[in-house]
Amino acid sequence: MTTGTTEFTEITYAVADRIAVVTLHRPDRLNAFTPVMRAELVAAMDRADADDDVRAVVVTGAGRGFCAGADLGAKGDAPFSYAGHRRAAGATSSDDTIDGLPRDGGGVVSLRVAAMAKPVIAAINGAAIGVGITMTLPMDVRIAAEDAKFGFVFARRGIAPEAASSWFLPRLVGISQAMRWTMTGSVFGSDEALRAGLVSEVVPTADVLDRALAVAREVAENTSGVSVAATRRLLWSMLGEASPWEAHRLETHVIAALKQGPDAAEGVAAFLEKRPAAFTARVPHDLPDRVPSWPDRPDRTVHPN
Amino acid sequence: MTTGTTEFTEITYAVADRIAVVTLHRPDRLNAFTPVMRAELVAAMDRADADDDVRAVVVTGAGRGFCAGADLGAKGDAPFSYAGHRRAAGATSSDDTIDGLPRDGGGVVSLRVAAMAKPVIAAINGAAIGVGITMTLPMDVRIAAEDAKFGFVFARRGIAPEAASSWFLPRLVGISQAMRWTMTGSVFGSDEALRAGLVSEVVPTADVLDRALAVAREVAENTSGVSVAATRRLLWSMLGEASPWEAHRLETHVIAALKQGPDAAEGVAAFLEKRPAAFTARVPHDLPDRVPSWPDRPDRTVHPN
Amino acid sequence: MTTGTTEFTEITYAVADRIAVVTLHRPDRLNAFTPVMRAELVAAMDRADADDDVRAVVVTGAGRGFCAGADLGAKGDAPFSYAGHRRAAGATSSDDTIDGLPRDGGGVVSLRVAAMAKPVIAAINGAAIGVGITMTLPMDVRIAAEDAKFGFVFARRGIAPEAASSWFLPRLVGISQAMRWTMTGSVFGSDEALRAGLVSEVVPTADVLDRALAVAREVAENTSGVSVAATRRLLWSMLGEASPWEAHRLETHVIAALKQGPDAAEGVAAFLEKRPAAFTARVPHDLPDRVPSWPDRPDRTVHPN
Repeated sequence: MTTGTTEFTEITYAVADRIAVVTLHRPDRLNAFTPVMRAELVAAMDRADADDDVRAVVVTGAGRGFCAGADLGAKGDAPFSYAGHRRAAGATSSDDTIDGLPRDGGGVVSLRVAAMAKPVIAAINGAAIGVGITMTLPMDVRIAAEDAKFGFVFARRGIAPEAASSWFLPRLVGISQAMRWTMTGSVFGSDEALRAGLVSEVVPTADVLDRALAVAREVAENTSGVSVAATRRLLWSMLGEASPWEAHRLETHVIAALKQGPDAAEGVAAFLEKRPAAFTARVPHDLPDRVPSWPDRPDRTVHPN
Repeated sequence: MTTGTTEFTEITYAVADRIAVVTLHRPDRLNAFTPVMRAELVAAMDRADADDDVRAVVVTGAGRGFCAGADLGAKGDAPFSYAGHRRAAGATSSDDTIDGLPRDGGGVVSLRVAAMAKPVIAAINGAAIGVGITMTLPMDVRIAAEDAKFGFVFARRGIAPEAASSWFLPRLVGISQAMRWTMTGSVFGSDEALRAGLVSEVVPTADVLDRALAVAREVAENTSGVSVAATRRLLWSMLGEASPWEAHRLETHVIAALKQGPDAAEGVAAFLEKRPAAFTARVPHDLPDRVPSWPDRPDRTVHPN
Repeated sequence: MTTGTTEFTEITYAVADRIAVVTLHRPDRLNAFTPVMRAELVAAMDRADADDDVRAVVVTGAGRGFCAGADLGAKGDAPFSYAGHRRAAGATSSDDTIDGLPRDGGGVVSLRVAAMAKPVIAAINGAAIGVGITMTLPMDVRIAAEDAKFGFVFARRGIAPEAASSWFLPRLVGISQAMRWTMTGSVFGSDEALRAGLVSEVVPTADVLDRALAVAREVAENTSGVSVAATRRLLWSMLGEASPWEAHRLETHVIAALKQGPDAAEGVAAFLEKRPAAFTARVPHDLPDRVPSWPDRPDRTVHPN
């Protein structure tokens, strides 16, 4: 069953086979990023994470582009203006600011994606430039169309890396490759993206969404949702942790918590009986408290002792 | 000369040519991991690290598997039970717990391997599933047989990453590849492991132990033991350090300390005389105090100022 | 226009087309590293960073080697002696020591390179051994001649990693490859360096400087200097940062600061008018205070709250 929603204006959101597909939807503008799109992407991630019937999220673009970057030529909005977002979200809360400054819009999306309990897979069907590629960096897998184009073009626009890409990009492709792309601002193709590990697969353009859905189904059909949520939170959060002892401590807690639920017993039973497991725990409903949240907004979080 | 020992029951331990070979030895169970094996692996690492005549350690498996994962079907022990370990080790000390919970068994082994002063090389002769692969992540080199199989299968068992793999795996293969394997729980072959950098070489199955021994001999025959111990501790510990200044500070201390010993003078003399060096410093006997230990158990360590 | 300088004795320094070329210049010693060279490299980096007319730096070697490592056979100086440097620099300041010890000389250079606001590209024209390769690790791009040789040979000399390479090397090539090279001390060629990601390109030996200059020109001709400086500082500093929220916070500050200057407006205008941008902001003159410095010497820095 497919559930579509209509309250979004610059993206679409639909769930089928326990996979939420989020489609950037301004095809006449190559899905260029706007404050409205930003707010809608955050809302879509909120919805997918809150839905017990969603196991994974696929993000793609409508038409021939994935996302051509910030919409510098949008009518009625100054470039980089945040007014549009405030109108769209009906909010002037402190969520919009950090240190009193309006938050970089790409970073708002990236950090929401980073915090997901469910895997997010990018189906990069065409050009992914600027925030069009940086917002995908906290996603778990990037699959690219063979004619996709990529560019970390900030230095050609007189600005600086955004969407927290200064943190994510060196961890994905290494500091030297990250500097090479960002200091030249060059635009490059899928082959170079694959060689550098920016994407993990390149497929014919017509197949990119199907391939991303196939990976999402591999998750949904074979694994425990609470296990995958715990895995995602543990692995990403440990990127910033100094010592493997903290991983050991958290893993000990999380494994103990998961053994209280139904999926650990089912997993072992299915293994011993040589049959597929039928997992029943749902996310977020059955996610143990001991699974860490990540990343914590530093000016909000009271760290437990 | 080969020195074998007989007090182990689920592994074997033998030293020849200054290389300790640790063999997982439950071939009828594909060397599946048990609490007894866990305790014996820790004891083997303790012994190798304490033996001035051991320069490197090779870990392999008996029979056609390397380690098929936790022994979920072991008789007389509930899966994941720690009772077996307590019997084996005769211990109920706080070393077995963290935050009052029984410690994840794979993590006990991984953190002991991580703390080694001597290099550890995995000769992965066959299937390495679950803890069978995660316990090798803190080893320095992984060499795989061409028909080895790998799987980070936790999400298919309803549990979560263990053996501190949430910390080690993203640092070895990148977060995206780490998520791909762990969120699908798929089993994959040596070619994929090699492409992703999980292993550094793939060789015919009959050659995997010889190849690992050759790397170990390259260390033992050409290098200073105190240099290698300092190198291992510095490089691994710096993975969690925020600033290269701390590396500079520690390297300055360690180099100054090593220059007090015999190997630095011999290394320079041999270089100038264009002859092989004959290093004499031993580990642990001659290891300077200034070489950092790593990783420190956080609830035990009094950090020096 | 080319500006050469003559006050250096073991390097040369020349600026053309807004690119500073620093050449290690002891060709009869394969440009082996000395305390004088150390002081001159620091001075060259200081000069390039302070010069508003320099956009990028290329470092190469004179003759057939790049840098054969520390000059263990230099006349009149004990190996590793720091006396030469003190004479060269005319300084006995606390900059020479850390914790009261004379600082590792390679680390002095590496940390100065790491702190650059301008990109640094290594044109590795021949042998790069010991400090000859480790001092290049904080450079942004390494391009190698096809007959270059590399070696992290410390363990064959009885010492330990230097030039803060225990921090940089695992981040460039992964901990397993870093351990493999450092624990064996083996010398290897450009093909192996390329496969491991130690260098990003291998070209015929006669072309290596031209290729590095081409990359430098790609930066100088297409990008904003303040953008590139901000990018370099953000990406490198974030390697040691625990949370992407800190990246988001800094990026928000830096982008806001850059929008006060001329290059952001020019970048957007040029994009909308489909013409090349003509950036005018200079570094360091126009670099906003909000661009972070990195890495901070920990015993000197008063961290802002």
